[in-house]
Amino acid sequence: MRTAKLLNFVFFISQKKVYFTMTKITMIGAGHLASQLSLALSKAGHHICQVYSRSEASASQLSKKLNCPHTTELKNLIASDLAVIAVSDDAISQVEKHIHFAKVHTSGSKAINLLNGNKVGVFYPLQSFSKNIKVDFSNIPICIESDNKELKSVLITLAQSLSKKVYEINSLQRCHLHLAAVISCNFSNLMYTFANEICTQNKIPFELLHELIQETAQKIKHLSPQESQTGPAIRGDLTIIENHLNILAEDSEKQYLYKILTNSIKNRS
Amino acid sequence: MRTAKLLNFVFFISQKKVYFTMTKITMIGAGHLASQLSLALSKAGHHICQVYSRSEASASQLSKKLNCPHTTELKNLIASDLAVIAVSDDAISQVEKHIHFAKVHTSGSKAINLLNGNKVGVFYPLQSFSKNIKVDFSNIPICIESDNKELKSVLITLAQSLSKKVYEINSLQRCHLHLAAVISCNFSNLMYTFANEICTQNKIPFELLHELIQETAQKIKHLSPQESQTGPAIRGDLTIIENHLNILAEDSEKQYLYKILTNSIKNRS
Repeated sequence: MRTAKLLNFVFFISQKKVYFTMTKITMIGAGHLASQLSLALSKAGHHICQVYSRSEASASQLSKKLNCPHTTELKNLIASDLAVIAVSDDAISQVEKHIHFAKVHTSGSKAINLLNGNKVGVFYPLQSFSKNIKVDFSNIPICIESDNKELKSVLITLAQSLSKKVYEINSLQRCHLHLAAVISCNFSNLMYTFANEICTQNKIPFELLHELIQETAQKIKHLSPQESQTGPAIRGDLTIIENHLNILAEDSEKQYLYKILTNSIKNRS
Repeated sequence: MRTAKLLNFVFFISQKKVYFTMTKITMIGAGHLASQLSLALSKAGHHICQVYSRSEASASQLSKKLNCPHTTELKNLIASDLAVIAVSDDAISQVEKHIHFAKVHTSGSKAINLLNGNKVGVFYPLQSFSKNIKVDFSNIPICIESDNKELKSVLITLAQSLSKKVYEINSLQRCHLHLAAVISCNFSNLMYTFANEICTQNKIPFELLHELIQETAQKIKHLSPQESQTGPAIRGDLTIIENHLNILAEDSEKQYLYKILTNSIKNRS
């Protein structure tokens, strides 16, 4: 397997729009990702020629923001340089078969071969999109994939017009990346939840932990997580571990997880 | 139990040193915390009158930086306003019995009653001190505890000369806080390690996840971790969960943890 690599930043938009290539895009979907992405693409100078959504309300709302037509009928899709499919994973197949021009999906967990045709690809921005929080794409890694050289070139240009971090990653790698994202982010957040529960039960403001949590997340920019590991497990401090297990005696879920996560750290030391 | 609260910032050092009270301190220990803390205290205008360490090399090295005498003999300790005991948890009892003036320990996991005497307390900076990384105490929460009014006042003043975030927290709360810190930071870092392992095995640069990890840690400053939770578990996206479990088929440790952490998130939704 080839190592995924950061693509050289060949595309550049200055005030003079040097090297700028405008892409005409049909946006498939009007949910959170579709909205954020199409607004960012439009702001970067690309032309969203149509928004499709099953929901008239969603399609209409987004198309107003983009100042473009919308449709709720797949048979009425306007052909363009590229259809960007930003719908839920399960809906991709249903919509893609109606698209007979270049198309990409935006899913972290679906393979490229879910799309039929010669000019197909993936355009996956690796970020957790929360409602009502506006996304700055410039630091969000965008992972692209296509076996079609011409489309790949379009995708690189498009991605680099949004983000400094554009990677070429194949479908198998992307599935693993998505899994790694769930583990490092969703499960970390669960650890914050556990900590918050303990704080609340003991009348400790959770804000006390904010700095330490930020620091832990920052450290891995400079050190590998393995090198960054601190705490009783990696030090083999059995007294503290025993003490923590005693504190958790009445919370069997947390006590059990504490044990196995501590063992995981120990086994890596 | 009383709710731990942020103490009002009554102490203030301006260029004119308004309200400044210099504390004369005997530093017990010359390890990482002792070094960082004594240098910060000295910089804040306090007087470190002596450094004690079992190790001549460590004591000598730190005392040179502080321009003060040092000793390796507990019987030669110089009495001062306050002894700050910053040694390993297991060594606290052995050293504290030789100190016959006001003293605090700096441990997150030891109760105040480990110290004998009338003027005893705890001065616990909540941070993970990594070797060779200089600590900025101004944002580090400092948790203080003392039943002695006079000493408590000294500790508040001392803590507020270092940090904007000074909390009064009792021993039971501090033990829980320490546990919450281990869970939210050491175990999060383990999640980063798992993700890094998956990336490495699949030739994906781990840096791809940096932004998402920072974002996850940042979010809990504005939303509770419960509100911040995203991902397939909280959405109940069984297809992706199944897919991830299949990917992890040959890594039984991660597969098992994925299952139980996913269930933990589901049970909270």
